[in-house]
Amino acid sequence: MNDGQPSYIVGLDFGSESARGILLDAATGAEVAIHIDAYAHGIMDACLPNGTPLPPAWSLQDAADYVASARTILTALGKGRRILSIGLDFTASSPLPVTAESTPLSVLHPGAPHAYVKLYKHQAAQVHAEALSAAHAERFAHFGGRISGEWLIAKAAQMRAEAPALWGETARFIEGGDWMVWQLTGHEARSYGFATYKAQYSPETGYPDDLVEGLGERLAPPLPVGQAAGLLSPAWLAETGILGPCTVAVAVIDSHVVLPAVGAVGGGTFVGALGTSAAYLMLSENFQPLPQGIEGVARDSSLPGVWCYEAGQPSFGDCLGWFVRQFADDGDLAAGFARLNAEAEASRPGEGRLLALDWWNGNRVPHGDAALSGLLLGLTRKTTPAEIYRALMESLCFGARHVFDLMLSGGLRIERVLMTSGLAERNPFLVQMIADVFARPVEVPAIRNTTCVGAAIHGAVAAGIVADFREGAARFGAREFTCYMPRPEAVAVYERLYAIFRLVSADATLREAMHALGALDM
Amino acid sequence: MNDGQPSYIVGLDFGSESARGILLDAATGAEVAIHIDAYAHGIMDACLPNGTPLPPAWSLQDAADYVASARTILTALGKGRRILSIGLDFTASSPLPVTAESTPLSVLHPGAPHAYVKLYKHQAAQVHAEALSAAHAERFAHFGGRISGEWLIAKAAQMRAEAPALWGETARFIEGGDWMVWQLTGHEARSYGFATYKAQYSPETGYPDDLVEGLGERLAPPLPVGQAAGLLSPAWLAETGILGPCTVAVAVIDSHVVLPAVGAVGGGTFVGALGTSAAYLMLSENFQPLPQGIEGVARDSSLPGVWCYEAGQPSFGDCLGWFVRQFADDGDLAAGFARLNAEAEASRPGEGRLLALDWWNGNRVPHGDAALSGLLLGLTRKTTPAEIYRALMESLCFGARHVFDLMLSGGLRIERVLMTSGLAERNPFLVQMIADVFARPVEVPAIRNTTCVGAAIHGAVAAGIVADFREGAARFGAREFTCYMPRPEAVAVYERLYAIFRLVSADATLREAMHALGALDM
Repeated sequence: MNDGQPSYIVGLDFGSESARGILLDAATGAEVAIHIDAYAHGIMDACLPNGTPLPPAWSLQDAADYVASARTILTALGKGRRILSIGLDFTASSPLPVTAESTPLSVLHPGAPHAYVKLYKHQAAQVHAEALSAAHAERFAHFGGRISGEWLIAKAAQMRAEAPALWGETARFIEGGDWMVWQLTGHEARSYGFATYKAQYSPETGYPDDLVEGLGERLAPPLPVGQAAGLLSPAWLAETGILGPCTVAVAVIDSHVVLPAVGAVGGGTFVGALGTSAAYLMLSENFQPLPQGIEGVARDSSLPGVWCYEAGQPSFGDCLGWFVRQFADDGDLAAGFARLNAEAEASRPGEGRLLALDWWNGNRVPHGDAALSGLLLGLTRKTTPAEIYRALMESLCFGARHVFDLMLSGGLRIERVLMTSGLAERNPFLVQMIADVFARPVEVPAIRNTTCVGAAIHGAVAAGIVADFREGAARFGAREFTCYMPRPEAVAVYERLYAIFRLVSADATLREAMHALGALDM
Repeated sequence: MNDGQPSYIVGLDFGSESARGILLDAATGAEVAIHIDAYAHGIMDACLPNGTPLPPAWSLQDAADYVASARTILTALGKGRRILSIGLDFTASSPLPVTAESTPLSVLHPGAPHAYVKLYKHQAAQVHAEALSAAHAERFAHFGGRISGEWLIAKAAQMRAEAPALWGETARFIEGGDWMVWQLTGHEARSYGFATYKAQYSPETGYPDDLVEGLGERLAPPLPVGQAAGLLSPAWLAETGILGPCTVAVAVIDSHVVLPAVGAVGGGTFVGALGTSAAYLMLSENFQPLPQGIEGVARDSSLPGVWCYEAGQPSFGDCLGWFVRQFADDGDLAAGFARLNAEAEASRPGEGRLLALDWWNGNRVPHGDAALSGLLLGLTRKTTPAEIYRALMESLCFGARHVFDLMLSGGLRIERVLMTSGLAERNPFLVQMIADVFARPVEVPAIRNTTCVGAAIHGAVAAGIVADFREGAARFGAREFTCYMPRPEAVAVYERLYAIFRLVSADATLREAMHALGALDM
């Protein structure tokens, strides 16, 4: 293929509101172009395109939007260019019902809510998740004995119960990411990523497909990530003007695809993605029984050949954002943020004698309880906004440390801690605090468009452009890392504050009070 | 005395920063004049008048300031007028060492800190209070088994320990209020009010004066309140131009003197004085063993013939003030207050699903623990400033309800609930909330200068101008009361919220965490 013409690889990231594609030079790794396309219908949580109103807690998307955005992006990036590979990532779990020919039922029944993609944040299947968890906890041993209402099994159960006729028309119930691969290649090739983490598939026992009537025949066995799903179809080549042949990789969960982009390709690596919420991934060559409170674990699903443990904090950056918006918005949110951040940084650890629990949107680790709520402790008439802001930031770090400690207590070896995302890049005060709270060096990779780059690396591996993910990471991923070293005097104070955090976090009376508050019937 | 000339009564209130006097028409009760005079040296907490620096936690006053202010006020109000009586109240405990002739040692030793008045808020005797409480809990049964560092016994112990030579020169160790009576009448006449509540005197056992070497000979037996201490001396009559004879009443603690002014003259009355902090007084004809958590009880010390139980919240209005100042000060504090108050009032009870513990300045009831701190529970990314403000206000009402419940659980009969002070008058939303939280009608007396009026009534009773406090209250006290009725729908929600408040308040783990935070050694 090396005929002197430059060749490229593409990474496609299907997010919540838009899709985004990156074009990298296959030889040098240089970023050549990026293109973003918003979904025509965005997130549908009030009504369908035809105006049909949706019940509360529903959150849908129109699969046609994904194809339209992919066409726009691939044309913009690829027209007339030799594209060797496409890797793609997707939100999860975001499944949809389709015919045997992959036609979304929403094309056939545009007025039926259950015919659309149920986005990951669709909450209306929670009751089914709870019923299944209660009845079959032992089936979900790799997921803390329970499944989430956001996952595929629960969403299938909801559809089967509420729209049996549509369920009858459904030939395949498939994740949006796997469906996009089907569109691009012309055949179905599902991913271990979605199957294991979101549909509780395991190579030994398959899917727990007997839990929902008819589910088994609507699924398909998955492939490990990093493999080729197929070639970009002639129709797509023609439509986009891409010069083939172009390998399409097996799809990847969006939160996992960043791993090779930030250089996390081997066991012993703990990676935090600090955004609105925070996701933590822990790579291990060996399996250990799931530490208490960790949300999921699977092999060959994030990267081939390694186990990936998953945990998170449901509120992270948005907790700080809430505080600034509500209490320090002088008309300029960014200025309020910068002012509070600077004031907080000027104080010493523990100086405010304040403690927060980072449960503004419930708690995942260790309680797995969305009904929990945030707490502030130690308030006096001298407490300042900057002290509260700092306490909130500390609580985020303590919550992260709790995840980290559970990994360690489960026997997992941790050699390297990476923190990634815009928040980690923009806020060195926060990352230094994490290093101090973890009492470990913390590295922040210097990279933009991390998710797209990670997807592109998956494509490069699948196409054989690089030998493996290590080489893919070296050629296309982050090349520079900023390292934050723990400061002993801060470490000593934070050890004591963290002990108080754990004491309060474990206090059952408080959780009882939070539940009682939430259950107030006014 | 009724020779056709109008006659008057005077009430004198010796506060923290100034003294204030009121002149009432003895026949009609009408307010004729008021005069305020600031103390020349105010509160001395940094240095003495000669520049001698003070250690931390010290808080002194110069007794000469009291006399100067009294002279100014009595001259302004009384010159050429027939004044039948003077009643006075004073901060407590604010004792000073004097010679046998009542000369303050500060006149003889102006550079010696221990020679001055130790104001009620002087905190440097706390260690002595704790040592005495630990060794002699059984001696303080009417005070929850402990004494405060703010009280006379502890301040005497501090002086004896730290300034033995000055203690040797001290003929009398006397409350500022009793000392002012001595100045006005020319002879010593102490008050049951100060002796019982602040020096743990009881008619059966006397003072616990053996606890500090030499204390017994420096005290004197007290008189019940409502009695005459003597006549205004010829020297004062000459100096002020007052036409006598003028009876001076036994002095009264400032927080107690309001009782007759607001119409609280009999058993079964619960009175709250809602200010920066909140003080609660419960009048009872019968004695019941002190309910757990109540701070003190004595007879004949607030009003003759009744027992008065005392409790309080160390932070009340200042907690709301803190929040507005820190988080809603748009350059105009009063506007911020009004805006938050209106926003909070527009919401329904429990709507924010938030709970606070009102411990911004520690807790007195039930824990008696100044090291406790404030708490906010139930925070989410949707929580608004107005919801927090409302939760703080609710926590103040719940703390008050806790005091109220302890009185009830102690077997005390409560027939009437009165809330007084500027805060109660200015904020009907707060008083309505108290009625809803207490599930009782709450009355707010319409009266200004309550403390001065109360002092004046004590003088009128002592001089025989009225037959008793009931008549004194009717003639000189509040004549109108605004009654707030509990609203059933709010009562129902608050019953549930209050149960959560009690649950969290009783949680020992939280208090352990607060102590650990306070003990952080940075």
